[in-house]
Amino acid sequence: MADNTDVIVNPKEDIVDPWTVQSSSEKGVDYDKLIDQFGSMRISDDLIKRLEKVTGKPVHHFIRRGIFFSHRELEMILEKYENKQPFYLYTGRGPSSEAMHLGHLIPFICTQWLQETFDVPLVIQLTDDEKFLWKDIKDPDQTYKLAYENAKDIIACGFDINKTFIFSDFDYIGGCPDFYKNICRIEKNVTFNQVKAIFGFNGSNNIGQVSFPAIQAAPSFSSSFPLIFGGNTRVPCLIPCAIDQDPYFRMTRDVAPKLKFLKPALLHSVFFPALQGAQGKMSSSDPTSSIFLTDTQQEIEDKINKYAYSGGGATLEKHRKKGGDLDTDVSYQYLRFFLEDDAKLDRLGKEYKAGTLATGDLKKELIAVLQKIIGDHQAERKKVTDEIVKQYMTPRRLNYKY
Amino acid sequence: MADNTDVIVNPKEDIVDPWTVQSSSEKGVDYDKLIDQFGSMRISDDLIKRLEKVTGKPVHHFIRRGIFFSHRELEMILEKYENKQPFYLYTGRGPSSEAMHLGHLIPFICTQWLQETFDVPLVIQLTDDEKFLWKDIKDPDQTYKLAYENAKDIIACGFDINKTFIFSDFDYIGGCPDFYKNICRIEKNVTFNQVKAIFGFNGSNNIGQVSFPAIQAAPSFSSSFPLIFGGNTRVPCLIPCAIDQDPYFRMTRDVAPKLKFLKPALLHSVFFPALQGAQGKMSSSDPTSSIFLTDTQQEIEDKINKYAYSGGGATLEKHRKKGGDLDTDVSYQYLRFFLEDDAKLDRLGKEYKAGTLATGDLKKELIAVLQKIIGDHQAERKKVTDEIVKQYMTPRRLNYKY
Repeated sequence: MADNTDVIVNPKEDIVDPWTVQSSSEKGVDYDKLIDQFGSMRISDDLIKRLEKVTGKPVHHFIRRGIFFSHRELEMILEKYENKQPFYLYTGRGPSSEAMHLGHLIPFICTQWLQETFDVPLVIQLTDDEKFLWKDIKDPDQTYKLAYENAKDIIACGFDINKTFIFSDFDYIGGCPDFYKNICRIEKNVTFNQVKAIFGFNGSNNIGQVSFPAIQAAPSFSSSFPLIFGGNTRVPCLIPCAIDQDPYFRMTRDVAPKLKFLKPALLHSVFFPALQGAQGKMSSSDPTSSIFLTDTQQEIEDKINKYAYSGGGATLEKHRKKGGDLDTDVSYQYLRFFLEDDAKLDRLGKEYKAGTLATGDLKKELIAVLQKIIGDHQAERKKVTDEIVKQYMTPRRLNYKY
Repeated sequence: MADNTDVIVNPKEDIVDPWTVQSSSEKGVDYDKLIDQFGSMRISDDLIKRLEKVTGKPVHHFIRRGIFFSHRELEMILEKYENKQPFYLYTGRGPSSEAMHLGHLIPFICTQWLQETFDVPLVIQLTDDEKFLWKDIKDPDQTYKLAYENAKDIIACGFDINKTFIFSDFDYIGGCPDFYKNICRIEKNVTFNQVKAIFGFNGSNNIGQVSFPAIQAAPSFSSSFPLIFGGNTRVPCLIPCAIDQDPYFRMTRDVAPKLKFLKPALLHSVFFPALQGAQGKMSSSDPTSSIFLTDTQQEIEDKINKYAYSGGGATLEKHRKKGGDLDTDVSYQYLRFFLEDDAKLDRLGKEYKAGTLATGDLKKELIAVLQKIIGDHQAERKKVTDEIVKQYMTPRRLNYKY
């Protein structure tokens, strides 16, 4: 999976692809337009009700609040589940940096909730090959090592060790002929002209980049994991991811019927805004743009106070009069992601909008929430030994019901 | 390695690339022109003398008779050998058919002689992935099985089991992360524009084809075989192959210095003519175009008598008067490949040219030679059990001197 770090200043239209996310508005990307453009479906209130009925529990607040807002064929997955047929989850990360940030957690938090709720197996692809092919890096072992580092942060999100397989592409392509055969099957059905149209590749792209989409596509098919699925090539797949990854899976869904494989279903999230505002995504290379999973309690406090873009009035007086703008206020937006308590979020939002709650007080709320989340994460990560990483990353039969 | 089966009728210029070999003349490809065009070196008499001096034995008749006629940096390999430094051999085959023909033996016969003469390790790549990507085949397991079938014919050529590693790409890419990392290293240094220029690819090529050149390049580097070379990344490589494969290795030699790897040396052969004449290469899909390794003694006799293009006179009378044309006579050309006895070949050639030897008699000589070679091959192949194939195809430390 790619990590969007390209910066394009004030584009006239939103730009969303696996390498660039840039909005033309300070409110961020126009997601309604994106749904139209990509041809996916908005997650409707009816679908949320159905989700709650099928699982017998409330949906995660990410879904309730439209943070995961779009999907492809989620109904198919629910139907399978109702009929007690298996499905599996697939998500991933491109290990380009040791320091993961808050935004990187979003798909993993949602995926963890889905795994727990549906009690299903999960595969997590760490695209160390992709990062090597795209970044200015001389040695593949650099991104390979980062894959193992990042695995610790991913494991700290609480995935079930008996139902989760995390893999580095270097390891797994170099370790499973069935996976490589599926990659070749996909490659055979995608031309250079197609990846040019889908991903904007051109003649200057290196030939590894050109064929990489097949590598991100392959885990969508259960036959890529013979040890996990015991040769069952018809286990459907649900992929939670940020919507910039959709081009990979549109391609995958086009190819699937040609291979007599099932099309993967998708669950799309919005982007997590940078501290400076929603016009970009966070960047690992700019430490002031985001909260890192390695930040100290003090750093969290300082960064929020110093860098979090305020939608409040220019002066306290003006704020009291006109109120704050929830759409552009980064602290409020972050609270939407991380404050679970609906009633409290609602109250804070109303008060801030009315101007009765000052920016500083809203930031104080956010700082407390994030200090707890990051602190807990760091404590969990400390428990993840190399031995535990090895267990998650060993291809094996997973313990789940068919 | 590709297998040239494309047929282009009467091109104005010779066409030589890994997918097409077609000559504009009935005498076959103009190899002097090809050397100029590819920028390789002709194997000179001096180089042959040096080879014989270094090894202390006469060169193989393939080299003596110009069947292996061109090279890149063979001197470098000889220098290493003189200084008692190791090198290794690399050759390969694209397993597109169960029935290998005589032409397919040429690189393996030469390679076997080189292995025996220099006492060096050898890797043989079976590009089952390539054949799947190029041929009208639905299932990668089809070419994968052919790789194992073809391995038996290759083993029957007499390679040293303690010094030879034969591998299917599906197995070895799916079994050795170091090999896959080298593939990515190469991919990163080759753009689509470059493979377009080198191989004539265009937007309609599938993305597996586009990146395949990196897969054929990777065995040229000893770091692709950590088990064989124990991590020594500086063992030089010599590649005996038909000259149509040279574009892959020109690309490899361009990339090598960027990766701080050694450029592979090359030894190029001419093409083995089809029974119908030197204007094409033999095709596995046309049974009358070639002698297969599975042909019976009777089939060999019938095919030579019926299909081998004659450079003799139209009638016996005219032949006696004007003599035969050695350059276009397929029986004589085949004898150049397979009749080891120089004196006899010389005598047959002289008599045929003079018209004192009839086409039928020349064919009789050839039939006897081929019946012996094919018969011996079939006997050797019968001895190759699945267990022996498994031994050759298991990645392992090879027994040779550093």
